[in-house]
Amino acid sequence: MDAVFQVADRMDSFGISRRGEPVIAIGGGVLTDVVGLACSLYRRSTPFVRVPTTLIGLVDAGVGAKTGVNHGRHKNRLGTYHPAVDTLLDPAFLTTLERRHIGNGLAEILKVALIKDADLFALLERHGRDLLDSGFQSPGAGAAVLGRAVHGMLQELQPNLWEHRLERLMDYGHSFSPTVEMRALPELLHGEAVCVDMALTTVVARRRGLVGSGQAERILRLMRRLELPVWHPLMEPVTLGEALADTVRHRDGRQRLPLPSGIGAGVFVDDLDAAELADAAGWLRAWSADVVRGSGTRA
Amino acid sequence: MDAVFQVADRMDSFGISRRGEPVIAIGGGVLTDVVGLACSLYRRSTPFVRVPTTLIGLVDAGVGAKTGVNHGRHKNRLGTYHPAVDTLLDPAFLTTLERRHIGNGLAEILKVALIKDADLFALLERHGRDLLDSGFQSPGAGAAVLGRAVHGMLQELQPNLWEHRLERLMDYGHSFSPTVEMRALPELLHGEAVCVDMALTTVVARRRGLVGSGQAERILRLMRRLELPVWHPLMEPVTLGEALADTVRHRDGRQRLPLPSGIGAGVFVDDLDAAELADAAGWLRAWSADVVRGSGTRA
Repeated sequence: MDAVFQVADRMDSFGISRRGEPVIAIGGGVLTDVVGLACSLYRRSTPFVRVPTTLIGLVDAGVGAKTGVNHGRHKNRLGTYHPAVDTLLDPAFLTTLERRHIGNGLAEILKVALIKDADLFALLERHGRDLLDSGFQSPGAGAAVLGRAVHGMLQELQPNLWEHRLERLMDYGHSFSPTVEMRALPELLHGEAVCVDMALTTVVARRRGLVGSGQAERILRLMRRLELPVWHPLMEPVTLGEALADTVRHRDGRQRLPLPSGIGAGVFVDDLDAAELADAAGWLRAWSADVVRGSGTRA
Repeated sequence: MDAVFQVADRMDSFGISRRGEPVIAIGGGVLTDVVGLACSLYRRSTPFVRVPTTLIGLVDAGVGAKTGVNHGRHKNRLGTYHPAVDTLLDPAFLTTLERRHIGNGLAEILKVALIKDADLFALLERHGRDLLDSGFQSPGAGAAVLGRAVHGMLQELQPNLWEHRLERLMDYGHSFSPTVEMRALPELLHGEAVCVDMALTTVVARRRGLVGSGQAERILRLMRRLELPVWHPLMEPVTLGEALADTVRHRDGRQRLPLPSGIGAGVFVDDLDAAELADAAGWLRAWSADVVRGSGTRA
């Protein structure tokens, strides 16, 4: 919120008008979220334009109506719904982005693929590594992947902009990651925390028979090929239990947990328990250690 | 905002659910505005119920969708539109309210009367002093005045809840008062600052022929009878000019200044200049001084 106040104070010293002078937010997702919240609060809403300069800003923070900042120990605990009047997406910004931040954005793209778009998953299997190497400058594949990811998000958000419905496919990967990301700060980027969450819930889905062994293997291998983490030491029963409890509060008293159903579709469950979670996390830890040692245990 | 954070932190330690556990805000208008903003921000909206315990809370802060807090030198500079899921109005709370705070609320009721409800003005002329004396416990008159004031506000707010239209009759008395109230802190209560603004703009309207001399006299006399101030030392050209400039920014580049037209109706003007403002303030200062001395100069 201190950053929000800084932006508000600059709007103030500029003497900004209420409606006719949109603030232009140029930067990553944290910046556009902070500026968006400042604009939302200033005179109870000042228009703003988003120009995301990171991959995760392009495909995630730059899509939809949400603004937010971390507060206390919680991810995005304070925020508003305040759509930008315009969002300008230009992948040219990505040419100067660090490789790790390309991976960070790829994680959110992978989320859309896993939970609702098998074709996007296939594109990522085929071109993901090239996109990571080229900073999304691969002709054809870059635009196709960005387009599918953004439109997939929009399809989910548009009919539920204010989240009156709390079963949200786009919450996939965001059930355990908010707590893990905040407790690991600054170790994990947002997309990395989301990827760890998706790896865990992929294993849960495999154990339930929602995802086949071969599919789970493809998912986890793709995560590794995109240089994303699939496990983190905070993925242990106590933290996972606390993370789930907070998510249940966030989803108004029920888990409403999105799980993949095969590759490219999702279901919601309410009955995940501590033992199942601990087993999945234990299996994933072992798989992750095997992969690092190169022994190649199958998923 | 510090108070907003305190409320958010208590919601957090309570472990509040997202939708099913509305926060109940019991208190004056500042409290319901602060709690409303905290609820608006917490998880991007948590439901809340307002129970105003002051007269100004009942007729003003408790009506409509706005939340807000002062920021920097500015009145309600940060806020949101976040309607309470319910607002419970019980005038029994007013039996323990200080006399000055009854007057504070009467100022906002007088606003509704002046700009859109001649019958309410007549009720205030007839019963206003009794209502002040009895803390709104006068049978009949109390309910009638509260009902007309709240319904008058609702009529104006309902079709324009998000203030897409910036010509707002309910902004009457709120053109100069935000700056005067903030600079005078803590001397003037909100309604007192609004009353000083209404006195000034009544004089502007009289000088323009929008309000007759007899009507202006009735208005200013009624303010005095309700023990409200009609002038303040900050009503001088420099402060008034700065106040108007900030209001023009708040109204997106135009004055959109509500002025009374007779008693019970209003018009909007865009052409108030510094000389006219200085003349009106000077006249009002003299009138106010005469009234205090008891020499009874006519309006």
